[in-house]
Amino acid sequence: MSGGLDSATALACAREAGFTCCCLSFDYGQRHRFELDAAARVAAQLGADEHRVVSIDLRAIGGSALTDDIPVPKGGEIASGIPATYVPARNLVFLSVAAGCAEVVGAQDIFIGVNAVDYSGYPDCRPEFIAAFVAAANAGTRAGVEGRGFRVHTPLIAMSKAEIIRTGARLGVDYSLTQSCYDPDERGRACGACASCAIRRRGFEEAGVEDPTVYGRGARRP
Amino acid sequence: MSGGLDSATALACAREAGFTCCCLSFDYGQRHRFELDAAARVAAQLGADEHRVVSIDLRAIGGSALTDDIPVPKGGEIASGIPATYVPARNLVFLSVAAGCAEVVGAQDIFIGVNAVDYSGYPDCRPEFIAAFVAAANAGTRAGVEGRGFRVHTPLIAMSKAEIIRTGARLGVDYSLTQSCYDPDERGRACGACASCAIRRRGFEEAGVEDPTVYGRGARRP
Repeated sequence: MSGGLDSATALACAREAGFTCCCLSFDYGQRHRFELDAAARVAAQLGADEHRVVSIDLRAIGGSALTDDIPVPKGGEIASGIPATYVPARNLVFLSVAAGCAEVVGAQDIFIGVNAVDYSGYPDCRPEFIAAFVAAANAGTRAGVEGRGFRVHTPLIAMSKAEIIRTGARLGVDYSLTQSCYDPDERGRACGACASCAIRRRGFEEAGVEDPTVYGRGARRP
Repeated sequence: MSGGLDSATALACAREAGFTCCCLSFDYGQRHRFELDAAARVAAQLGADEHRVVSIDLRAIGGSALTDDIPVPKGGEIASGIPATYVPARNLVFLSVAAGCAEVVGAQDIFIGVNAVDYSGYPDCRPEFIAAFVAAANAGTRAGVEGRGFRVHTPLIAMSKAEIIRTGARLGVDYSLTQSCYDPDERGRACGACASCAIRRRGFEEAGVEDPTVYGRGARRP
């Protein structure tokens, strides 16, 4: 759970489907920790049983605007290709830890809020990757070899951002608790200008749902 | 690189094959840090260009004698089934971070010292897992989607422990620098009694290579 809009909605889908939820967030050397605070608030609001934070220092490998001193691109447009905010192997690493965690808590079902429609060029948000990951996790863990194996649920993978927001609104997600901005101000308020802010804002507009995002001073407003 | 015998030998194989090597070790909440010190010494001895240590707190997920307060089994016998020292999804997590690291440094080749012959019940040391992992890494990374993709080399996978030791001895590995024991004393000396010590000792015997391991006081000696 990143604390953003998609993972909050994925949690709501898991709760709606009747699952008891252990949420997993990562402290991976993000530039700001507002999203971890947001994740904790969202987990509590949606009735998760547990929220674990695993620290992994992806800065030691570098290569991303989200963990390095590479500038976060501005302009609000979604560029083609793999963006500077791509973190090498991020979902591969995160799902791997999730599989270990699931094995320990005795869970078979892993939910992840990846989305391949509002595709921003991240290879690790595609169904081909998810399917290949499940095969690897089932080959490389006790749960896969001795048990029933893992299922990875991607309830949002075929939804537009507007559909995600409508789904979450219907399931009671309080989006004012979520945090999407790549480059918030010192109080955690959204910049309104990064690619993530642009996608989020457009989603609320297209969903016809009021945007509860708190923008910072000087932010580009809707 | 764990600092143990196998990863030291895998590094020697990579160097022998002509690769420039960036070594990757993990600080994952092991009970002791002697193995990270050993890894740094081995990397230097074998001429690696770089040695990176990535911190990941696998204690937050628990479930293993190597990261929890579960007792490390003694007796020196290799039990059947998956042992208490199994760390959930460990090689899945480690290879995932390695893929991210490889992507950043522009490497296509990942070496890992897994071994399926002296099989201790770890599902993530089997060729089936390695093949499935490569497919997942190639589906979920920029290097896989836009580039030539990864190769994972497992030079030791079909070797007995004795063959590994003979190979490493031939390639100049100084095994006195390596650390295999699951339960060393306060100075990092081997206990001589855990499953890992037993496998290592038997390997030197069968290889006909002198065992340079430093055993602690009161350790069960060869």
